[in-house]
Amino acid sequence: MSFARPLQLARGTLDVEHGPLACAPLVGRDEAALRIELERVQAVQPDLLEWRIDHFGSIADTTRVLAFAHELRSRAGALPIIFTRRSIREGGSPIGIDEDGVFDLYEAVCRDGHVDLVDVELSSEPHLWARARDLARTSGVRMIGSFHDFVRTPSRAELVARFTAMQAGGADVAKVAVMPNDLRDVLTLLEATLEARETLDLPLVSMSMGPLGAMTRLCGWVFGSSISFVVGARASAPGQLPIADLRAMVEVLRRAMDDR
Amino acid sequence: MSFARPLQLARGTLDVEHGPLACAPLVGRDEAALRIELERVQAVQPDLLEWRIDHFGSIADTTRVLAFAHELRSRAGALPIIFTRRSIREGGSPIGIDEDGVFDLYEAVCRDGHVDLVDVELSSEPHLWARARDLARTSGVRMIGSFHDFVRTPSRAELVARFTAMQAGGADVAKVAVMPNDLRDVLTLLEATLEARETLDLPLVSMSMGPLGAMTRLCGWVFGSSISFVVGARASAPGQLPIADLRAMVEVLRRAMDDR
Repeated sequence: MSFARPLQLARGTLDVEHGPLACAPLVGRDEAALRIELERVQAVQPDLLEWRIDHFGSIADTTRVLAFAHELRSRAGALPIIFTRRSIREGGSPIGIDEDGVFDLYEAVCRDGHVDLVDVELSSEPHLWARARDLARTSGVRMIGSFHDFVRTPSRAELVARFTAMQAGGADVAKVAVMPNDLRDVLTLLEATLEARETLDLPLVSMSMGPLGAMTRLCGWVFGSSISFVVGARASAPGQLPIADLRAMVEVLRRAMDDR
Repeated sequence: MSFARPLQLARGTLDVEHGPLACAPLVGRDEAALRIELERVQAVQPDLLEWRIDHFGSIADTTRVLAFAHELRSRAGALPIIFTRRSIREGGSPIGIDEDGVFDLYEAVCRDGHVDLVDVELSSEPHLWARARDLARTSGVRMIGSFHDFVRTPSRAELVARFTAMQAGGADVAKVAVMPNDLRDVLTLLEATLEARETLDLPLVSMSMGPLGAMTRLCGWVFGSSISFVVGARASAPGQLPIADLRAMVEVLRRAMDDR
């Protein structure tokens, strides 16, 4: 009853038949904060973790990043990990390294093999996007192409064009997160997701952010979104639902939608 | 955070700020069945009752209908009651009286004063619609204009035209319930509700039926639908949610949407 596609990772497939994959962000400033956060997040049993490396104060210290990626892998067990540097223009935190440095870091982390997916913004320089794509292919890490707009919701056609560009550029997963200014924008995001689901082959992730868009974090799964980002120990974007709320609502929705 | 409008009844206003009004149907064949049903339904504390008189075997016996309307009022206390004959072509049960007989019955029930609202299909003969409208105005009973399509979802423009025709025809509330054949139809129903909410003045009720449309029974409230029809002791249309599920989901949605 959902149009969402499963996520194929090197270590196996993440099924979405019973609901969207709940992805909890980790936004700690240092290892100590991340350890506390991880413990809280693991208690609610998400399906995925996203380490938001732009929040990590020591992002410039590759050795420390790799060491914590290793620690995260051993603490998280089988839980798949997304490694994400969100740029300032797409809602991330300021960092102490330049764009080449970010992609050097992605390369080191992919080669080390402790993460399952990397998030690469569609707005990245084409040569950096291509570098990440090639890296993902050779290392077995999957690449999420992403587009964020914290101010507005582009038209349905523009949103579909973004999803399409990500597939054309070799992404394994295509993600769009946009801010609605009214309820029509919320419907536009769902329509675009549905259209991309019909015209493209890869798994999609989409959400309308903030209070107005909160319903898409639940219902977007029905229209084709494979992941819902939830509040972990803290939220990483406006409108995220607590994981228990998401799961309870998905259960009700599934019951209602399976009732034939 | 919802665009739904409150329902103004002769006996007071039904507020929709905290969620859609949950309306439970009563579909018993006789008084004994209705009494059992009412007891079950009252246990879950709906906001409204809808007596589906087309399911009542003795619909041709006005005295029995009036007697049970009276009993329903005294058993239901302050709970507002909708009196509804659903025609066969709009999803109702066969009955033993003709259209004039139905409107005679509506008149008798309205004059008796034991119900708060009557449901009149937009497809009724114009003189019968006008008769019901005049009756509602003089008796203080409110009139819900309604349109149902159990096969398909008309276009956005057609749906808005139905809502508009109900307001133009003097209805106090306008209701549209249609069947989706795909998820795009579900979005069409929500878009039409939003547009009617912006262009019309009366409270609206809308839903996309069946499993695919189940989410509109929850989220439709945000887009302007004031009532969600729930499973009472039994469902009266496909896709209805149990009232506890509806309330739990609305609570989660409200929390997420109030989170500024």
